Amino acid sequence: MLLCDIGNTSYHFLDGELSFKKSVASFNPYKMKETIYYISVNQKVSNELKDLANWINLADYIDMKFYYDTMGIDRIVASLTVENGIIIDAGSAITVDVVKNGRFEGGFIYPGVVAMQKSYENISPALAYSFNFDLSLNKLPKNSQDAISYGYLKTLYSEVVSHKMPIILTGGDAKLFKKIFKDAKVDEELIFKGMQKIIRNFDI
Amino acid sequence: MLLCDIGNTSYHFLDGELSFKKSVASFNPYKMKETIYYISVNQKVSNELKDLANWINLADYIDMKFYYDTMGIDRIVASLTVENGIIIDAGSAITVDVVKNGRFEGGFIYPGVVAMQKSYENISPALAYSFNFDLSLNKLPKNSQDAISYGYLKTLYSEVVSHKMPIILTGGDAKLFKKIFKDAKVDEELIFKGMQKIIRNFDI
Repeated sequence: MLLCDIGNTSYHFLDGELSFKKSVASFNPYKMKETIYYISVNQKVSNELKDLANWINLADYIDMKFYYDTMGIDRIVASLTVENGIIIDAGSAITVDVVKNGRFEGGFIYPGVVAMQKSYENISPALAYSFNFDLSLNKLPKNSQDAISYGYLKTLYSEVVSHKMPIILTGGDAKLFKKIFKDAKVDEELIFKGMQKIIRNFDI
Repeated sequence: MLLCDIGNTSYHFLDGELSFKKSVASFNPYKMKETIYYISVNQKVSNELKDLANWINLADYIDMKFYYDTMGIDRIVASLTVENGIIIDAGSAITVDVVKNGRFEGGFIYPGVVAMQKSYENISPALAYSFNFDLSLNKLPKNSQDAISYGYLKTLYSEVVSHKMPIILTGGDAKLFKKIFKDAKVDEELIFKGMQKIIRNFDI
């Protein structure tokens, strides 16, 4: 079974145990002949795939009344895999979603590492540091690099832990954020697991 | 007595009760003949003012061993006014500084409203919303505008209130952030008060 999670920059495939990526800019979906179960947050790619019978959009099986219209399908699918927990998907944006008793309770969006670093840099060249993921969260900073690192990471941490729920980390920067959320479970294949669950539940 | 707080874009004067701003780009400090007590985070302006005998730099009276080298003088001076509290200076950057028993404990830097909005916008045009300062902090969002507003504001809120200290708001966006920090005291002249304190203490 071939699964595909389509983002703004890449097609992320899972073929059994094998996971690989193709660039949205260069990959041609017409070439694929097998059945592919996909989700996509990329509107342009979604429009192209509509006409291809072997590309099955799993978003069509989601009951949207539990979510909201502009919510990314990747967040929805990830939230299907958790009964009780707070899911942090750390990519170009960081989405944080709470699931209680299998039900999506709401969530928020925080800038990813690159976007936030640019944000500090744009305020002043004096703030153009990379983030220190090894900083102590229990000590108020007394140097500039830690002052912005704490501003980015500890604020997110304080909010996330206030929910007192198990934390699940996924996305390209999951391992990096594990340094901050030390008790979190890292699961880089959360979205594929959600997709497999839809396929099972609807016997697709 | 004429006081002046110099930032990256403006000279902010206080003349008795009267406060006014002049643009860094167009104002000529050589024109001023009276004595001016100033602080400056603007390195270029600081260098110019060194040669002018009537411009008195109050930074020269600060004992830096309680602070750190790259810390903005405005944060230092604001922290002089508080015995126990957490100071939020909301401008192009948001600085958050903790003072306990009159001593600076450390602090962090968070992006200001404009910088953070650009950050979301750069991630995706789908996140190009202005922030909703009237959002409920007790409810996880279920729409995109609140999802980014919560990401920006509630994370900061959770961290700040975790310190369980009186909150003092200053800076150009102080009144806006009062909507989030409802129990905070707004004091837009905190830095001038700190400058007056230095002048009194050192009998300048």
